[in-house]
Amino acid sequence: MPIEPINPPARLLMGPGPINADPRVLRAMSAQLVGQYDPAMTGYMNETMELYRGVFATANEATLVVDGTSRAGIEAAFVSLIRPGDVVLIPIFGRFGHLLREIAERCQADVRVIEREWGTVFTTAEIEAAIIEHKPVLLGVVHGDTSTTLAQPLDEIGLICEKHGVLFYSDVTASLAGNTFETDGWGLDAVTSGLQKCLAGPSGSAPITLSPRAVEVVNSRKSIEAGIRSVGDAVSEHPIRSNYFDLSQILDYWGPKRLNHHTEATSMLYGARECARILIEEGIPQSVERHRLHGTAMAAGLSGLGLELFGDQSVRMNNVVGVFVPSGIDPDGGRSTMLTDYGIEIGTSFGPLAGKVWRIGTMGYNARRDTVLTTLAALEQMLRRGGMTITAGSGVGAALDSYGN
Amino acid sequence: MPIEPINPPARLLMGPGPINADPRVLRAMSAQLVGQYDPAMTGYMNETMELYRGVFATANEATLVVDGTSRAGIEAAFVSLIRPGDVVLIPIFGRFGHLLREIAERCQADVRVIEREWGTVFTTAEIEAAIIEHKPVLLGVVHGDTSTTLAQPLDEIGLICEKHGVLFYSDVTASLAGNTFETDGWGLDAVTSGLQKCLAGPSGSAPITLSPRAVEVVNSRKSIEAGIRSVGDAVSEHPIRSNYFDLSQILDYWGPKRLNHHTEATSMLYGARECARILIEEGIPQSVERHRLHGTAMAAGLSGLGLELFGDQSVRMNNVVGVFVPSGIDPDGGRSTMLTDYGIEIGTSFGPLAGKVWRIGTMGYNARRDTVLTTLAALEQMLRRGGMTITAGSGVGAALDSYGN
Repeated sequence: MPIEPINPPARLLMGPGPINADPRVLRAMSAQLVGQYDPAMTGYMNETMELYRGVFATANEATLVVDGTSRAGIEAAFVSLIRPGDVVLIPIFGRFGHLLREIAERCQADVRVIEREWGTVFTTAEIEAAIIEHKPVLLGVVHGDTSTTLAQPLDEIGLICEKHGVLFYSDVTASLAGNTFETDGWGLDAVTSGLQKCLAGPSGSAPITLSPRAVEVVNSRKSIEAGIRSVGDAVSEHPIRSNYFDLSQILDYWGPKRLNHHTEATSMLYGARECARILIEEGIPQSVERHRLHGTAMAAGLSGLGLELFGDQSVRMNNVVGVFVPSGIDPDGGRSTMLTDYGIEIGTSFGPLAGKVWRIGTMGYNARRDTVLTTLAALEQMLRRGGMTITAGSGVGAALDSYGN
Repeated sequence: MPIEPINPPARLLMGPGPINADPRVLRAMSAQLVGQYDPAMTGYMNETMELYRGVFATANEATLVVDGTSRAGIEAAFVSLIRPGDVVLIPIFGRFGHLLREIAERCQADVRVIEREWGTVFTTAEIEAAIIEHKPVLLGVVHGDTSTTLAQPLDEIGLICEKHGVLFYSDVTASLAGNTFETDGWGLDAVTSGLQKCLAGPSGSAPITLSPRAVEVVNSRKSIEAGIRSVGDAVSEHPIRSNYFDLSQILDYWGPKRLNHHTEATSMLYGARECARILIEEGIPQSVERHRLHGTAMAAGLSGLGLELFGDQSVRMNNVVGVFVPSGIDPDGGRSTMLTDYGIEIGTSFGPLAGKVWRIGTMGYNARRDTVLTTLAALEQMLRRGGMTITAGSGVGAALDSYGN
């Protein structure tokens, strides 16, 4: 039985990500390849660095993409910044906080965590108290955790980290470009992301930015590659325990030295560049406002359908909302009907929310009025046929009201 | 100054890779995304596993792609298989042997190397003697090393490894599908590759296959992710020191358990699947023969131009050939002329061959008669204008003779 060419079914991806890629990103990725050191290629790499400085709101020279999914970016930052035994503080308010802890443990950090019930975030005072108690080398916080739909306020944490001499890292995979975020303005030292949420691209490339202070830490652990090492070359006491994620070597590949490391994933680079190019053309504040507009309309529409929203709405991300599955509706059956009958994917949940909460995204290319209204219209039909009593048009109506029509 | 959409210059990539992607691969990658657990997506993942079993010539269930470039595949294999302190033997006959050593060192292996002058390979007896001397847990050998253009014969090594209880790993990034290779027939336990050579795709996805014995080693080191770990869960004494490259977790994501790990890089998966689909449609022996045909014609043509070939031609890879830069010709100037005047990229060299040898590839989509003849025609012009005396048509003529015209 021969295997046929790729021909995916039409899907409107309204879950917590990945979402549909902007067609312009896919077109960029279909461009033919050039050589690794072709002036066109190194030019694209330089432009990608410049574009992501805009997306991250930073002047950091060390701004580039790691060739892997968003967790590759996290691991590159952690394995390059954390020395075995370093105290690392991870505030956990959802699944991706657990992932940060897990990756920090693999780096043999002395990991300390503080935890919050899912659906809430930390106060700045709670984070400061933990910093004072644990005296970490690095604070690692998820900005927006899609597992709970909430965003941890980070704008006051940078000053606290500076005061206590702590490196400040955040994973902004889920939040970047859909929610206000400022690398330099908020005092971050290392930030990593992915393309598959508000950046409107496919998973597989992880934008990252490092402050000069973070670069100093990374470069203090630099290894000269075996085989080109000379007698007398300094050998770090705490070498970076990964070659692929060694940011000191990756920086030398992206920087003016252009030292060979991996072979840059050209198509993913084309995609990452186009994601950022489109965003910068729109404007980051404009993109955040677009996500706020459509996310608010979706939340209003879901409430209009009589569904209860999950979590502290005052700190909800603009781009994803959780709703409790109404009683009498089968959580997986409902999602399956949405996919099969309407071609619309909505998200399930993990951990304590599994089987209780659906997560519905409005992000990137899918943060649009037509996607919000279509999803609400389909949800109304699915819920009614599932046995729920709903006033006809109440979801779409509430969304239209939210839009101000 | 606004940054324009991707619009790369037309290039014929006749270096040691990356090469031009097959347009069918780029078309596959431009397909719209589907959700991570959409039946279409998990179906594509299963088909990709099946296709790569064909490409690797193996029945290994554990056959999948790692989301990263080819060195991500190497690191995933090493960090998952090698425990700190394990003796690892690396025979080095070119640059990528040094890379294997470097990555094994990062995994804190006790690395033993044997080295061969660039342009030669090891005898089977030399490798067996080193195995007997060092008693390694794992033997890691590059199959085809593009830095020297040579392929290490591996067909007798598997039996030796089995006899001595050694895990047998090979990096086949440069050789797979262009040269005869058999995972099961030659007794390999772990093999990793990339798309950017004879597979005719972009860098960014690393096909990998593991024997049942390798899977056993990997699974004996499995960690249950923090946060979903239960009291009483076994904790390995030698946990895998990477989350992103933890093959035990990656296997659970690709296997029937479908445990969430990274978000699969959908577009790269589409590309990797199409690379293998095209190859299986052609037939692996047919693909190897195509590379032999055009590689032989290229080598004949280069000799016809009066150039001296580099290295032991009896073990040269089919898909890349090295030639000494003739005296009087500027190595970088010559390459630059080829790129600027003819749009053809040929390769430079590393280490002891830097500035002395050009490397010319005929691989993947570019293993064709028209690319061979065009490259030889352009080389003749470039060399003549650089001052070399060449009989007009001698390169193209020798290639045509090789083709049997």
